[in-house]
Amino acid sequence: MPEASGDQIARLRLIRSENIGPITYFQLLARFGSAAAALDAIPDLAARGGGRAPKLASRSAVEREIEQVARIGARYLFLGQGLYPPLLAELETAPPALIVKGHATLLDRPTVAMVGARNASAAACRFARSLAQALGESGTAIVSGLARGIDSAAHDGSLDTGTVAVVAGGVDIYYPPENEARQRAIAERGLLVSEQPPGIEPRSRHFPSRNRIIAGLALGTVVIEAAPRSGSLITARCAAEAGREVMAVPGSPLDPRAQGCNQLIREGATLVQSADDVLEAVNPSRIRPFRQPERAYGTAEVEVEADDEARESVIEMLNGTPVPVDELIRQSGRPPAIVQTVLLELELAGRLERHAGGRVSLV
Amino acid sequence: MPEASGDQIARLRLIRSENIGPITYFQLLARFGSAAAALDAIPDLAARGGGRAPKLASRSAVEREIEQVARIGARYLFLGQGLYPPLLAELETAPPALIVKGHATLLDRPTVAMVGARNASAAACRFARSLAQALGESGTAIVSGLARGIDSAAHDGSLDTGTVAVVAGGVDIYYPPENEARQRAIAERGLLVSEQPPGIEPRSRHFPSRNRIIAGLALGTVVIEAAPRSGSLITARCAAEAGREVMAVPGSPLDPRAQGCNQLIREGATLVQSADDVLEAVNPSRIRPFRQPERAYGTAEVEVEADDEARESVIEMLNGTPVPVDELIRQSGRPPAIVQTVLLELELAGRLERHAGGRVSLV
Repeated sequence: MPEASGDQIARLRLIRSENIGPITYFQLLARFGSAAAALDAIPDLAARGGGRAPKLASRSAVEREIEQVARIGARYLFLGQGLYPPLLAELETAPPALIVKGHATLLDRPTVAMVGARNASAAACRFARSLAQALGESGTAIVSGLARGIDSAAHDGSLDTGTVAVVAGGVDIYYPPENEARQRAIAERGLLVSEQPPGIEPRSRHFPSRNRIIAGLALGTVVIEAAPRSGSLITARCAAEAGREVMAVPGSPLDPRAQGCNQLIREGATLVQSADDVLEAVNPSRIRPFRQPERAYGTAEVEVEADDEARESVIEMLNGTPVPVDELIRQSGRPPAIVQTVLLELELAGRLERHAGGRVSLV
Repeated sequence: MPEASGDQIARLRLIRSENIGPITYFQLLARFGSAAAALDAIPDLAARGGGRAPKLASRSAVEREIEQVARIGARYLFLGQGLYPPLLAELETAPPALIVKGHATLLDRPTVAMVGARNASAAACRFARSLAQALGESGTAIVSGLARGIDSAAHDGSLDTGTVAVVAGGVDIYYPPENEARQRAIAERGLLVSEQPPGIEPRSRHFPSRNRIIAGLALGTVVIEAAPRSGSLITARCAAEAGREVMAVPGSPLDPRAQGCNQLIREGATLVQSADDVLEAVNPSRIRPFRQPERAYGTAEVEVEADDEARESVIEMLNGTPVPVDELIRQSGRPPAIVQTVLLELELAGRLERHAGGRVSLV
């Protein structure tokens, strides 16, 4: 049995439980002071939210996952602890735990994300490879998503200097299949990162989540050849929302594959043509200190109990249309902690869904 | 003999005289209230500047020019009078007179300049032609420089809707020679514009002067495929200095012909990919009223005489290195009118040269 503290087991049980996303996880720890206390409190919270208690991950299931992670030579990084990358920890939706395989110290380096089209032109792939290589030689680690096209070229260019691949499924699942050799090489010489347990096949909903990790790990994101409404633009939006630098490589208006990048530049992304342009934009010397402060969960905030009247009034303000939590708090006229508590209860009861941009809706 | 007022003849005599550029011309008119009075005063001014009087254009030479302009079917537009384009009049270095051939009312339209590489790619030329056509169909007149490549494509695309060609030599000189048919067509269906009298062959020093007119005539300048340090970038800089919109069409970093445009975008030019992008940037509905107020030359400012001490102190501050006039005024501690008078005298005496950005040096 690999070594895992009781707290880590409790954290993983929370993380793998139904209806508990990163924001709920954080709120539970903030409210109850520890994952174990949160686990104990969940049935009551869900009952107050008017639903059955969420199915909690069992201790044995989590122990099996921990064993499997050890068996495939990977390990965990927990939010707020040890080597968890500080830049990623800044995200409101930072993954509570990452599973990594390879050289985790790469995450101590200044990092630049490079993403782009899977069906990129040969010229753009060559450009991406050279750019990744030049950035790598300057001491930067490259983060990408191990997709076909630009992502693969970015990893190839930085394999010798430092490359980090964030995958949508488990780190032991080779996807896309033709990238198996590349993924194995990155696990050996670079770093594989995933939010999912081993064995999980990537599904479409995993990709946007994966994209936020790519953006969150990096000082800035460079987009090369992206179609409008592509995943690369989601990554760029995540980077912008996290206050990171968004950079794009331009192309001719006559090239459909340049549309997304040119549009990004029109919207304010920095036009980059070279590693120097990228380094000027992200200014790696400004990098934050390596060790983040422990995330302040504090001890249990006692006495933030919502009464039935508060609960009813918040529920009345909700329907199937996502609405910002800030707006709910403002309109309710109640203390933020009360509104958040009601939302937490509803979510644990399976009645609330969280959306991008801090919005929520009834399920 | 074509009709020309005595004032216009006097103005042309000033304009065609040695050592009298646009700024000096404007200062002379402001100081002496009329071109005729300025002509009378020049010998004394030059003597005070410590040189021989500049060779003034003779009345007969100017009358010959006026006849020639009429003979080739062209006419004059004088700064501060009648149809002279108000946008161009805003420039500090606005040409005191233009010679135009064709449909001068095109200058009443919202105007967009399009410039670019002479050796542009076929794709870029096609793009320029389509863009000019789409802008023309929206009611915009296109201004360009009748060079090979992008300029020619821009004129071709807007010949049916409204095209203005600013040429470096006389409007009757076909340059480049292969553009003769195009230049004739523009004189018939569009408008030819020049600062030079008929018969003048374009020389290298004429091109930057021509570029400032292109930029000055337009609400904004679009650059398509420009090499670093090319004339198109001079036009873009003129546009920026005049507070006009600078726009550029991006290209792949792998295409050397895209370098200039991509650099412009990095420096703040608006990335444009379509006529809609251009119209959004220049916002032709904001266009200034068609008739500008008469430029206020006033009557003679009497008693702005520089004494020898003032003259010596200004001269001592000058050498062969261009220095901003503002800086001279500040360092001299003397009234601006005195310093300007000394500079005017020196220029008329052939001892002072004016440079871009309001700078002057001794010859």
